Amino acid sequence: MFPKTKREAPKGAEAVNHKLLVRGGFIDQLAAGSWTLLPLGWRVVSKITQIVREEMDAIGCQEMLMPLLHPREVWDQTGRWDSAKEVMYQLKDTREREWALSFTHEEIVMDLMKKHVSSYKDLPLAVYHFSTKFRNEPRATGGILRGREFLMKDAYSMHLTEEDLMVWYEKFKQAYLKAFKRMGFDIYVTEASGGVFTEKHTHEFQVLAESGEDTIYIKKGSREGYNKEVFEGKKEDYEEHKSIEVGNIFPLGTMYSEKMNALVTDKEGKKRVIWFGSYGIGTTRVMGAAVEAFHDAKGIIWPKAIAPYQAHLITLNAQPAALKIYDQLEKAGVEVLWDETERGAGEKFADADLLGIPVRLVVSEKTGDKIEWKERAEEKTELVSVEEAIERLTSV
Amino acid sequence: MFPKTKREAPKGAEAVNHKLLVRGGFIDQLAAGSWTLLPLGWRVVSKITQIVREEMDAIGCQEMLMPLLHPREVWDQTGRWDSAKEVMYQLKDTREREWALSFTHEEIVMDLMKKHVSSYKDLPLAVYHFSTKFRNEPRATGGILRGREFLMKDAYSMHLTEEDLMVWYEKFKQAYLKAFKRMGFDIYVTEASGGVFTEKHTHEFQVLAESGEDTIYIKKGSREGYNKEVFEGKKEDYEEHKSIEVGNIFPLGTMYSEKMNALVTDKEGKKRVIWFGSYGIGTTRVMGAAVEAFHDAKGIIWPKAIAPYQAHLITLNAQPAALKIYDQLEKAGVEVLWDETERGAGEKFADADLLGIPVRLVVSEKTGDKIEWKERAEEKTELVSVEEAIERLTSV
Repeated sequence: MFPKTKREAPKGAEAVNHKLLVRGGFIDQLAAGSWTLLPLGWRVVSKITQIVREEMDAIGCQEMLMPLLHPREVWDQTGRWDSAKEVMYQLKDTREREWALSFTHEEIVMDLMKKHVSSYKDLPLAVYHFSTKFRNEPRATGGILRGREFLMKDAYSMHLTEEDLMVWYEKFKQAYLKAFKRMGFDIYVTEASGGVFTEKHTHEFQVLAESGEDTIYIKKGSREGYNKEVFEGKKEDYEEHKSIEVGNIFPLGTMYSEKMNALVTDKEGKKRVIWFGSYGIGTTRVMGAAVEAFHDAKGIIWPKAIAPYQAHLITLNAQPAALKIYDQLEKAGVEVLWDETERGAGEKFADADLLGIPVRLVVSEKTGDKIEWKERAEEKTELVSVEEAIERLTSV
Repeated sequence: MFPKTKREAPKGAEAVNHKLLVRGGFIDQLAAGSWTLLPLGWRVVSKITQIVREEMDAIGCQEMLMPLLHPREVWDQTGRWDSAKEVMYQLKDTREREWALSFTHEEIVMDLMKKHVSSYKDLPLAVYHFSTKFRNEPRATGGILRGREFLMKDAYSMHLTEEDLMVWYEKFKQAYLKAFKRMGFDIYVTEASGGVFTEKHTHEFQVLAESGEDTIYIKKGSREGYNKEVFEGKKEDYEEHKSIEVGNIFPLGTMYSEKMNALVTDKEGKKRVIWFGSYGIGTTRVMGAAVEAFHDAKGIIWPKAIAPYQAHLITLNAQPAALKIYDQLEKAGVEVLWDETERGAGEKFADADLLGIPVRLVVSEKTGDKIEWKERAEEKTELVSVEEAIERLTSV
């Protein structure tokens, strides 16, 4: 596995995800806010991606992929070329044509829809993609939580009526709750302002973490509440938390369609503007939030569903036995990271705690024909047969 | 399935892939050379991606993901900030810092390796990613074959010696041949010049097509030859073909490592420069090349392994029977596109021919408890039982 772990966190790193993801070899910084996802990090993000994909497909949202380099003319139609200038990278090519790098895709998806959607029969329609977003971040700190370049799943839905938009808005909300639950998060949903996206209230999906940058107010005894900037309730009815936003949904309404003249014909043959919603999950940010929420002094504690591997096999002077066990695990379909380096037990165990794979399996001269089983979140170790280990790892 | 097919090809489209992919709703043009992969196109590219991924993993190449926005300083180290200026998008951010958009990743991967590789024990090392490439194309025509933004798998390998580089270079060559064979291509390998990458000769993987822009010379009776610009043989010993390049491999040598001072310590403790190779497959270009190579007057004829679906189910006034059959196919794991629109047989069959899914299945009042089976590449139709259809579709 490339690269090796590091004993020391990078200089100046403050966020836990920054320190642990870099030390573990999950990510590497190319420039402030710009990260390579190394093999381990890529595996985690791929797991997150696949869970989101399955929940999007389940509600009938269709996957596609839109470009990253956008002609200025499309962004001019809503005025966001100017109003979102601060966060948008803008460039001129050698022929003086102006382009923006994707910081989101509302205008681009609307431009696409205008070419392919003309009748109420074409609606509702929901599409999504996983792609790179660029934001000219003045303060690209916080490890992988805040980047000038990051990965995001963004979805867009189009409707004939506001009622239908709100039906789908709720579908997306439920799909997000399912996806985050599968990833192992305890999620809170808050009302928030729409920023550069909309004047309406929107919803954010929040993960509690001491290091969170958001202040939210959760109604006591519930899992819902408000972000600070829109909070108007009585503080005594709410609990104040620090949290990290991992997803958001926007009932955008008709503003984009009006400005871009995106119309469909209804049953009576009348032209109507399309109702529009957008829905985001920052998949690289989710990885960072997971580290902030699930770690201890020794390292990361990945939830099972997004761990880079299911088991971390460590061999101590026991190569022939280990090779057989590794083969058995592989054949059973278990994703195993095998540490077959010639290092001491202490160093290998410290790596296992740092990397945070849910189950550590040790094969040594002492374990005989059994394996030592230890879960990352538990202190206890036990000797189990290979069959028992496989049984535990493959039962859901 | 979004969007509907189109009767007419876009104005000005000349390339077959441009006409058929747009008419079929596989791709949509945002700007010259910039394409959205619509759901059908995304499925094809995903199939191509997965085949390439499996063959890269099989030779021990590790997947990761590198950023797209690159600081100028890294590109200055090899001089390519200036020498590749013509093809590279370059921009200044609001703080006057200069960036390039990824047109390739040699410098970026070398910068990464310098941080993590220090000893001969860390080598050989091979990594790859699937990511977006940007090229400031003056002439972005040819449909999806030549874009200002496109998808590519690029791999990089590092070695202590030239011998080891050449062992891996051959591994990559064989992996490429396997991958392209699985995709259904008849591949020719040619020697070519290295362009802005290297002064050495490189190898290209070529697909024959009337519309190809490359002229190659293939030694009679063999599958190997030369690109025009490096050809020095006797024309009578070779056949001249038009072809489309779908992949290339570069034995880059030590030029990048020398300029970037990428060194490792050998067994004797001496510092040595790393031997370096890079290996590309344009996954969106492969989709376009497949259309150029496999089509007829009616539409695309996808090879099985990269078809967006395995079967195209068409129902003609037979919804209840069709629903049952659709369920049976889905349960058997067959990827089915179901055309359940209320249109005439002629229109539906024309769509099936255009989309090019390998098998067309028709359920109508006439077919009784059977299905009409027709392969896209054949004229013949036959009536088969659902079980027989599933048997044929699921046997490899």
